[in-house]
Amino acid sequence: MVKVGIVGGTGYTGVELLRLLAQHPDVEIVAITSRGDAGTAVSSMFPSLRGRLDLKFEDPSLANLKGCDVVFFATPNGVAMQQAPQLLDAGVRVVDLAADFRITDVAEWEKWYGMQHVSPEWVAKAVYGLPEFNRAAIREARLVANPGCYPTAVQLGFMPLVEAGLVDLDHLIADAKSGVSGAGRKAEVSSLFSEAADNFKAYGVTGHRHLPEIRQGLSRIAGHAVGLTFVPHLTPLIRGIHATLYAKIKGEADFQALFENRYADEPFVDVMPTKSHPDTRSVRASNLCRIAVHRPQGSDTLVVLSVIDNLVKGAAGQAVQNMNIMLGLTETVGLWQLPVLP
Amino acid sequence: MVKVGIVGGTGYTGVELLRLLAQHPDVEIVAITSRGDAGTAVSSMFPSLRGRLDLKFEDPSLANLKGCDVVFFATPNGVAMQQAPQLLDAGVRVVDLAADFRITDVAEWEKWYGMQHVSPEWVAKAVYGLPEFNRAAIREARLVANPGCYPTAVQLGFMPLVEAGLVDLDHLIADAKSGVSGAGRKAEVSSLFSEAADNFKAYGVTGHRHLPEIRQGLSRIAGHAVGLTFVPHLTPLIRGIHATLYAKIKGEADFQALFENRYADEPFVDVMPTKSHPDTRSVRASNLCRIAVHRPQGSDTLVVLSVIDNLVKGAAGQAVQNMNIMLGLTETVGLWQLPVLP
Amino acid sequence: MVKVGIVGGTGYTGVELLRLLAQHPDVEIVAITSRGDAGTAVSSMFPSLRGRLDLKFEDPSLANLKGCDVVFFATPNGVAMQQAPQLLDAGVRVVDLAADFRITDVAEWEKWYGMQHVSPEWVAKAVYGLPEFNRAAIREARLVANPGCYPTAVQLGFMPLVEAGLVDLDHLIADAKSGVSGAGRKAEVSSLFSEAADNFKAYGVTGHRHLPEIRQGLSRIAGHAVGLTFVPHLTPLIRGIHATLYAKIKGEADFQALFENRYADEPFVDVMPTKSHPDTRSVRASNLCRIAVHRPQGSDTLVVLSVIDNLVKGAAGQAVQNMNIMLGLTETVGLWQLPVLP
Amino acid sequence: MVKVGIVGGTGYTGVELLRLLAQHPDVEIVAITSRGDAGTAVSSMFPSLRGRLDLKFEDPSLANLKGCDVVFFATPNGVAMQQAPQLLDAGVRVVDLAADFRITDVAEWEKWYGMQHVSPEWVAKAVYGLPEFNRAAIREARLVANPGCYPTAVQLGFMPLVEAGLVDLDHLIADAKSGVSGAGRKAEVSSLFSEAADNFKAYGVTGHRHLPEIRQGLSRIAGHAVGLTFVPHLTPLIRGIHATLYAKIKGEADFQALFENRYADEPFVDVMPTKSHPDTRSVRASNLCRIAVHRPQGSDTLVVLSVIDNLVKGAAGQAVQNMNIMLGLTETVGLWQLPVLP
Repeated sequence: MVKVGIVGGTGYTGVELLRLLAQHPDVEIVAITSRGDAGTAVSSMFPSLRGRLDLKFEDPSLANLKGCDVVFFATPNGVAMQQAPQLLDAGVRVVDLAADFRITDVAEWEKWYGMQHVSPEWVAKAVYGLPEFNRAAIREARLVANPGCYPTAVQLGFMPLVEAGLVDLDHLIADAKSGVSGAGRKAEVSSLFSEAADNFKAYGVTGHRHLPEIRQGLSRIAGHAVGLTFVPHLTPLIRGIHATLYAKIKGEADFQALFENRYADEPFVDVMPTKSHPDTRSVRASNLCRIAVHRPQGSDTLVVLSVIDNLVKGAAGQAVQNMNIMLGLTETVGLWQLPVLP
Repeated sequence: MVKVGIVGGTGYTGVELLRLLAQHPDVEIVAITSRGDAGTAVSSMFPSLRGRLDLKFEDPSLANLKGCDVVFFATPNGVAMQQAPQLLDAGVRVVDLAADFRITDVAEWEKWYGMQHVSPEWVAKAVYGLPEFNRAAIREARLVANPGCYPTAVQLGFMPLVEAGLVDLDHLIADAKSGVSGAGRKAEVSSLFSEAADNFKAYGVTGHRHLPEIRQGLSRIAGHAVGLTFVPHLTPLIRGIHATLYAKIKGEADFQALFENRYADEPFVDVMPTKSHPDTRSVRASNLCRIAVHRPQGSDTLVVLSVIDNLVKGAAGQAVQNMNIMLGLTETVGLWQLPVLP
Repeated sequence: MVKVGIVGGTGYTGVELLRLLAQHPDVEIVAITSRGDAGTAVSSMFPSLRGRLDLKFEDPSLANLKGCDVVFFATPNGVAMQQAPQLLDAGVRVVDLAADFRITDVAEWEKWYGMQHVSPEWVAKAVYGLPEFNRAAIREARLVANPGCYPTAVQLGFMPLVEAGLVDLDHLIADAKSGVSGAGRKAEVSSLFSEAADNFKAYGVTGHRHLPEIRQGLSRIAGHAVGLTFVPHLTPLIRGIHATLYAKIKGEADFQALFENRYADEPFVDVMPTKSHPDTRSVRASNLCRIAVHRPQGSDTLVVLSVIDNLVKGAAGQAVQNMNIMLGLTETVGLWQLPVLP
Repeated sequence: MVKVGIVGGTGYTGVELLRLLAQHPDVEIVAITSRGDAGTAVSSMFPSLRGRLDLKFEDPSLANLKGCDVVFFATPNGVAMQQAPQLLDAGVRVVDLAADFRITDVAEWEKWYGMQHVSPEWVAKAVYGLPEFNRAAIREARLVANPGCYPTAVQLGFMPLVEAGLVDLDHLIADAKSGVSGAGRKAEVSSLFSEAADNFKAYGVTGHRHLPEIRQGLSRIAGHAVGLTFVPHLTPLIRGIHATLYAKIKGEADFQALFENRYADEPFVDVMPTKSHPDTRSVRASNLCRIAVHRPQGSDTLVVLSVIDNLVKGAAGQAVQNMNIMLGLTETVGLWQLPVLP
């Protein structure tokens, strides 16, 4: 059994990690920490786990995290960069679900995240945990920077086109819509039911923290800088991201076949038949990404639809997938639950 | 492997059966029928099953249902009473998720369901599939009448009190709230998003079909007729039933202990600590029933809160639980997924 | 024009007051205060008011509230009892939308609200602002204690029965369901979209602050103490309360006629035809209460369904209605908008 | 008083017309028709109108529509083209809320709507009812083709840019999201609560009927053909459209000032300050369109956000606005209600 620890388990990515790991046949959760809720039974905060997870939140300073094989950081940005290095130095593998190690350009990271990075050396060693792009490196990684939710949906949707170089890479457009759980389990007015229900809005159009991450990822795939307009929106669902991607065609191809071939061996990416419209509920509570490719009215603009569950493939599920890869487990183990529909 | 067939798989109980059975380690789904959608791939109607269930809907007359060990009827009321007998005669076990075999008084059934019963002899042989009350009989059953969703939540909430005879059985009150999936996947104006979202209402206060079923169940538990006021409501959630039950105390007891003892060995009933308020999401997509017992302000009125997922413990999950019991499998196998929260 | 001030306008009852008063033909809003947001344009916080309300939030100490004819307190509990007396002494009429003056038994109030009352003399002078019960007194009032949302729906539903003395007043049951805006515009985890959407739960079963208010109101109507079990629930709608009321019949009557006659002259109470099921959206954004009376299956338990919009008839609308009555305006002026459906 | 008739009043645009017209000070509703519901009181179908509208649905053949000054068609596509001409010939003015007279190229219309047009001569005479573009012509119109919901939001968002010729008109992109009421009050599985709630999806990416209407409108504004990619999405709200518009900048300008100047005199278009994110609820139940203009990260791609209530500015409200203009009434009369927030 793999010994697993979770730092910061009181948010939505934390409880989703618990849901997945508690059902993972090869995993034993040995510690979960929370500074504010130390001593509280996990199942009293999350009754969905009653009878199935007999753990209490522990103070981070007291928990035996160094005795773990893997530690997940489900903490706010800025925590893992402080606490992960000592675990890494002790030989523990780390998956950070926050943004601390995602951006390789430290100055860029500091600009977007508004703090100084205290562990730039580990930024350099971290592996970006998008298995469909980076599986070989993840296998060897000690520290995985788990991608953001929007970046996962957008990169998987653009990747075959960018790799093939068939579209105008200076004017990519990603119009993305997220459920409210993406904002986390923080008490903020803008995330209240009475604010977010029966309402739809864009936000962060002037600049969202996932923009540099997506731009870095697509540039890495392309081998050179790309131009991207990224507009995130808040939509009244709990879970789910729908990315609608636009690209101007520069070279002809059978785009459907391009996508199908690219993802033929990927267990968690499903390229749907032509003319499909994947809906977010078709991946709800699962680690899947479903994609459809359209060329409306035969124009020179390609439209790609990409959906994920932001808490699973966009966070906790992908983190478990990365753990499986790092440890040489079957990549899909513990992640094979069917989506919940309706 | 148990060979399973499903008659009428295009509704919500049907797709939920598919979700559960496709993940059941001891089950092989060999046939699923739909008169209207014969020839259609199941996964094209329900993309959540893409890549995991390679079956087409078959015409009921052509499907090899007699070759199954168990057949589930997820059909509208009135179908199973016509088609189940020939399967039963051929030695197939049957679980009916509709109401055809739930009410033992055939005349009463005909009054509430507005049709003539064509198989009263099987009504007499059918076993009411509430395992917490009827496990021994289910074990021997050839035909299980799977309980309705409201009846499951209400009976489990009242059962310890009725068995103990500690409350006024002439004036029980069940104020129940259901998510909209309880109305099924039928195209009806009243179930439209724009009608049911951001809206709350009672319905069927003059008389709902689940009233006689609950009354029969509670009377059977009590050993004599009970008086019940049952008011169902529609609330804007997809899945979930919350039953708020009121009973006048006739005799003193430690009601918390009464409930805890009654359900101590039940894998799917969770009696929560005193002062708890179970929410429907704490059982979402799981086969659990969670119950809390209150005596507000020390008055002589007891309040019991009982929640289930109407599609799981209220339908497909309980059906699989009944199948497990009938076939001598571990009762919880295939039903051990954790609730999805948030 | 009536000069109106609002203390504490940044919550949901505050913005609803603004919506109603900005459209009231006889009203001029001259001041709105907020300690935390002084200097902010109201329409920058609530874009729905852009171009229609040219006011800034002012610091309470600086606003010319004493120059108003009426001041509304849309503040947290405990503020009005401190600030209203000096306005009252200056001859300003006050409507308090919080609970400070609702409970005449000050010790009882202090128990439920957990603070010491600093203005018990004004509790004695305050008039409980339920126009359908108390219109004459409101007409003469200087200080109106605007009823709570649950108390409005429950009292209007029970009132004809309690007045007529036809039901068992020792065992009234009020099973009430509220939209999430009832919890206010406070940043709390339990009110987050991801917590409250697609979820249903009871809360405060052991004792909710509206219990003593309802009990006081019904006892006043009855002329003696009544026994009440009150169970509030949270349901995923923004606005709306649905109260389902249960009472045991002690004396026979034409209950439908009883209700119709009682409310025949009430502009904001609509008794629906027999067998009706009022839904919350049928009163959404309006000052109406709709009521239906049922006697299911001819039993001895009466069921009354009562719906309001918690922010209008349950708060801001009723406050404006009280202002209209106090000032001798037409009672319905400014409150005659049709409900928004769908 | 203006005598008004409504043909087909049982859908969402019909009931919204009723809500607005019943509160319009200069209007008397004299007839409302429905073939299927003739004889039914309007308020029994829509309890929100109880006590405020004392009309029954009449059979279209019997209603005195020719005695009206204006008749609104709130019917499915294909009805108005058959029934409007005789009213027009009798001197009645007509506003068609369906699509029958929107597309001037009859062959194009027939292709998209799948039926033969029976009144092409009235297509030629009809005036497209987008007041912000076409006010002078509407003033003289006998027949107004009321714009579609998406076309209203998209055209108002693009109009200043297209008029100014500052963007690449060959590659406009409109990513639009609509609440479910846009699908109408038809009993269809895809519009069920359990399908549309907690779910997000694109639809009609291969070609939606509003595409030719928007393309025609923008081409008319531009003076030549434009290229447009239009992707509609379904989002779980009842009312509201959010259009996110993308255009490549060809010439520099102060885009904020361009929009503000263009709409300075428009009562129903609100250009918000720079960096704003209009949300759909800020226009809920009102006739407003709110717009924000962004140039993210100083790139050469402009992003315009445009929100309306699809049932008001996108249907019934705009129809009343057109009526006001046609009849020489104050344009805003009956349409001045504030948005309902929250």
